[in-house]
Amino acid sequence: MELAVVKAKSSGQGRSGRRDRAAAGQRIVGLAKNIVAHIQHRDDPYVDIPSRTLSNVRFDERKGIIELLDGTQRRYFFSLLGRRKGEGSQAKKFMQTIRVAEVCKKLIDTSDSTSIRDLFYNLKVPIKTTDGKTGKELIFEEQAESDPIIEDIEVTVAALREELGVHAETKGAMVGPMTIIDNGDTIDLSAMGSGGWAVPSIVEPDVIRFVKHKAEYVLLIEKGAVWQRFNKDRFWETHKCMIIHGGGQPPRGVRRLIYRMHDELKLPVYVLVDNDPWGYYIYSVVKQGSINLAFESQRMAVPQARFIGMSSRDAERFELPAHVTMPLTEEDRRRAKEIRGYPWFASKEWQREIKHMEALGVKLELEALSNKRFSFITEEYLPRKLAEKRWLD
Amino acid sequence: MELAVVKAKSSGQGRSGRRDRAAAGQRIVGLAKNIVAHIQHRDDPYVDIPSRTLSNVRFDERKGIIELLDGTQRRYFFSLLGRRKGEGSQAKKFMQTIRVAEVCKKLIDTSDSTSIRDLFYNLKVPIKTTDGKTGKELIFEEQAESDPIIEDIEVTVAALREELGVHAETKGAMVGPMTIIDNGDTIDLSAMGSGGWAVPSIVEPDVIRFVKHKAEYVLLIEKGAVWQRFNKDRFWETHKCMIIHGGGQPPRGVRRLIYRMHDELKLPVYVLVDNDPWGYYIYSVVKQGSINLAFESQRMAVPQARFIGMSSRDAERFELPAHVTMPLTEEDRRRAKEIRGYPWFASKEWQREIKHMEALGVKLELEALSNKRFSFITEEYLPRKLAEKRWLD
Repeated sequence: MELAVVKAKSSGQGRSGRRDRAAAGQRIVGLAKNIVAHIQHRDDPYVDIPSRTLSNVRFDERKGIIELLDGTQRRYFFSLLGRRKGEGSQAKKFMQTIRVAEVCKKLIDTSDSTSIRDLFYNLKVPIKTTDGKTGKELIFEEQAESDPIIEDIEVTVAALREELGVHAETKGAMVGPMTIIDNGDTIDLSAMGSGGWAVPSIVEPDVIRFVKHKAEYVLLIEKGAVWQRFNKDRFWETHKCMIIHGGGQPPRGVRRLIYRMHDELKLPVYVLVDNDPWGYYIYSVVKQGSINLAFESQRMAVPQARFIGMSSRDAERFELPAHVTMPLTEEDRRRAKEIRGYPWFASKEWQREIKHMEALGVKLELEALSNKRFSFITEEYLPRKLAEKRWLD
Repeated sequence: MELAVVKAKSSGQGRSGRRDRAAAGQRIVGLAKNIVAHIQHRDDPYVDIPSRTLSNVRFDERKGIIELLDGTQRRYFFSLLGRRKGEGSQAKKFMQTIRVAEVCKKLIDTSDSTSIRDLFYNLKVPIKTTDGKTGKELIFEEQAESDPIIEDIEVTVAALREELGVHAETKGAMVGPMTIIDNGDTIDLSAMGSGGWAVPSIVEPDVIRFVKHKAEYVLLIEKGAVWQRFNKDRFWETHKCMIIHGGGQPPRGVRRLIYRMHDELKLPVYVLVDNDPWGYYIYSVVKQGSINLAFESQRMAVPQARFIGMSSRDAERFELPAHVTMPLTEEDRRRAKEIRGYPWFASKEWQREIKHMEALGVKLELEALSNKRFSFITEEYLPRKLAEKRWLD
């Protein structure tokens, strides 16, 4: 008997978060029922888990996202061997998988959520022995064990961890001409002062709903300090856009929210980052997803996201003095070469962009525009780039 | 002719941020006028800058804060020698000081603010030569030069950098039964959903005003993920308190806001951190300020802040299993010993607390309470600690 490998599509399109979570809960029940059926047939129970290896990942050029292929790994209950050298036994991992699935199901049933660290501690408990006593071994010793199991459940039941009710860190803020409902509270994001609305870890439709908006696009700004300048100058008001930051590499909550605004409200997404390999990488993750979390791409990646800056041409275009640039380090050059090799940067324009940075041998921070004046970035730089359509796809 | 060394007291008590900023602006003008007077008298112009050295810092036991003493360093214009080996000439530093002061004055006059990195780039410009031409040397080469000059201005004109309009990073969020005005927008912090209000970098009274509140105390939670649990369980509603986090070590905006709620609204402050030396240190900074920024203590430190947990007694008190604790590292032991030597931890109770952790040889994270259940921290742990008054001062 085969376990059905549920494809991510099934929960990808739903607008109702509660329904999505319930559906994910149902798939966990399905997983459990299959295992019970195996046992009743006196088979060795197993779970088929989609493989998250490089060989099972592919860049879909048409959709423009990194996707998981159909490869799975079978995890048996009656096996004391690991799948790879140094790995725990399949029996132990099977047990861990079921226990994490159980916690996720409870979180769904109680409309609750928790952090990956809390979940780890919640399951840092002794394994019961066959005679019902408390054993010496723990279900999890380290969070490094429980995090991959959470990912296993995500791919197996085709749900984002946020739908399961598990989250990582929180970072970032957003303001703009939009009213949302966050956990029952109606929040006018155009009246959020200088601080803004802190973007939570979980922004699924059962928590966050879009009520109305006048935004014409979403602008993701790499740095919180630069975002503050955009908020201070009320760029979002003049330019009718949502401004959001994720304090560097945006956390999942910020990425997922951007995805939802793009998918549900059909808002174009612009990304504004430093001109360095790290900036290109931040854009790359928003656009295509990351390779090691390819299974999320379908509900996290925005292939149409536009790179609005900073470009390696901007120092010249905006007549910035050479002394505000910084030399590329060896590490920068190595990363630039690597990023230039990503299939989604294969276009002539992108190759030119990255190679130009390498040829100049320098990088450029957003704050360097303050060499002109503090509001140059909001009053001249970005408006001109948008007007002249100087972005890369 | 002596420059008046303005004491921090003069701007510490004011409730009107605009007045405070204006007063700081006036002190910058005073500084400049003194220099002009020196020049008109054909004296060598200088600035007296309060010393930020360990020998010029003292723990005031009565007030319970770290304070700057009266020692100053005189920075002359006509001196090509540095004060210390390897330091730039006094002439250059004098010039840098005046240029940073000039930018701060402009920020004040235009009700503007900027980040320390933007300020650096703004002054990364060539020095004009005596014949008015563009020279080769830059005012600042590195941010490592401009940051200390900002601190020089802060102590010299006795203003926090936030009053001057200069800020660092933004982190953290707050919710609770309070209505504030943030930059003209009225925000009900009890209707901020799951995300909360993102605490801005600058929370001076000209930006943030407290309108009304029903809070009985302020609870600072070390970690964002734990804060989310408190928000999810609406702890702030049941317990009538403000909950705030700073994403680890709280940034200046969060510290300053806590200070203001304590000082202006007379709210007691409770600090909830991991039981490890880093947690003690976070509490220590909230309570007494940090040694290298002693001049801010008067308007940042809350000597009455209470350490509500986690205590090294909590694992036993709440019957947590030994396997959720973690062994202290060598670095932990070194830090614990250092922190135990701080004069504000000299009390019998504090010595007992830290020594008990050292004797147990383990540390304990807030998330370890999830080993009981996810809401144990909000429903049992903290209510019991508050009811039993189990905090340290």
